[in-house]
Amino acid sequence: MRTHIKTIAFDADDTLWVNEPYFQEAENRFCELLAAWLPPEAASQELFNTEMKNLHLYGYGIKGVILCMIETLTRVSNGTAQLHLINQVLELGQELLNKPIELLQGVEETLEALHRKYRLVIATKGDLLDQERKLTKSGLQDYFHHIEIMSNKQVTNYQKLLKHLDCSPANFLMLGNSVKSDILPVLALEAFAGHIPFHTTWKHELHEEKVEHPNLISLNNIADIIKHLD
Amino acid sequence: MRTHIKTIAFDADDTLWVNEPYFQEAENRFCELLAAWLPPEAASQELFNTEMKNLHLYGYGIKGVILCMIETLTRVSNGTAQLHLINQVLELGQELLNKPIELLQGVEETLEALHRKYRLVIATKGDLLDQERKLTKSGLQDYFHHIEIMSNKQVTNYQKLLKHLDCSPANFLMLGNSVKSDILPVLALEAFAGHIPFHTTWKHELHEEKVEHPNLISLNNIADIIKHLD
Repeated sequence: MRTHIKTIAFDADDTLWVNEPYFQEAENRFCELLAAWLPPEAASQELFNTEMKNLHLYGYGIKGVILCMIETLTRVSNGTAQLHLINQVLELGQELLNKPIELLQGVEETLEALHRKYRLVIATKGDLLDQERKLTKSGLQDYFHHIEIMSNKQVTNYQKLLKHLDCSPANFLMLGNSVKSDILPVLALEAFAGHIPFHTTWKHELHEEKVEHPNLISLNNIADIIKHLD
Repeated sequence: MRTHIKTIAFDADDTLWVNEPYFQEAENRFCELLAAWLPPEAASQELFNTEMKNLHLYGYGIKGVILCMIETLTRVSNGTAQLHLINQVLELGQELLNKPIELLQGVEETLEALHRKYRLVIATKGDLLDQERKLTKSGLQDYFHHIEIMSNKQVTNYQKLLKHLDCSPANFLMLGNSVKSDILPVLALEAFAGHIPFHTTWKHELHEEKVEHPNLISLNNIADIIKHLD
């Protein structure tokens, strides 16, 4: 059916490998550090507020999250927290940066099946060095023609990527787990998108409304894309 | 003389615009915060030690520096610093991220003179979003064919860049202020490099030995490159 697809871009975090569960685990531990001042849900909301306030400055990625955790801790404790809690937050960040890479099911087989027939690229956001390190750890880099680490995933960012790849929207398919970042901006450009749900999503990436679009394919898992392309 | 040059890459920080003096100002203010525990020079050395310890994890850029300042503050004060000092460090970081862009002398005229005849690119390291924001603020983006924000500037990073640009080393000239990052790895690839000294350099970028190489041009300022290319 979709034989006009020439380039397939993959989101990385929670599409190729596990990511959000590690962030949630770190956030849970952060909320425990704040237990003297706030119940976990309220602590999590405070952190989210700090993240949203600073997103335009810090962008996405672990380093920004850790800076936001520290800012939240000083605010919520009203300056009364002991300094060893700051160290525990710094350690949470360094642990996150050192996490192993756990590939999601079907990823390697899917890339193996597609990489000779299509130009495969990664389109991901986050800290530059961290995303490069994860790709190296994943062992997947040889499947990809190009790695694009983006500061954001809005329509203009995808426009730049398509220009850079010299690829028409009609020949471009993006696969990812975030409706907001991987699907909607791609559909807005009249390119193609495949949604692969992941069991948990960062609040900031949530998109509640159901999306229907002739260029959108809903997949149960990454390997399903193969039969849609045949 | 060097009419085989087709692509000219520019370092950004302290080559196109002022950067290191802002970092040094922030570091001086950080050292003042530590005055109760250490004299300024020792505080600066402690920060440098933390930065070197964490460089493989955080990479280059403001967010990593701020995380290192916080870690240094907790260590040097042996956990006794008050939390408002942490807030002051976070504010230092946010101020750095909001600094205006001050172009160095001759930059705009040089780009104007070169951009029709050569393919101009930026090759810089640092935080992704921060470097993009500085470029936007600079108003220079239309002169450039491509912007490469690199996690590091070692030989392998330049090899990837040349491959990506489909450019032979013999046709590539890199201009920058850091002998370590902008000159030596480029010369190692048998490409061309032009060194434009800046009055102050981060300790980590210092290279004390004099470099002599047939592919190296020493420039007094950025505009000097024009006469070398004619």
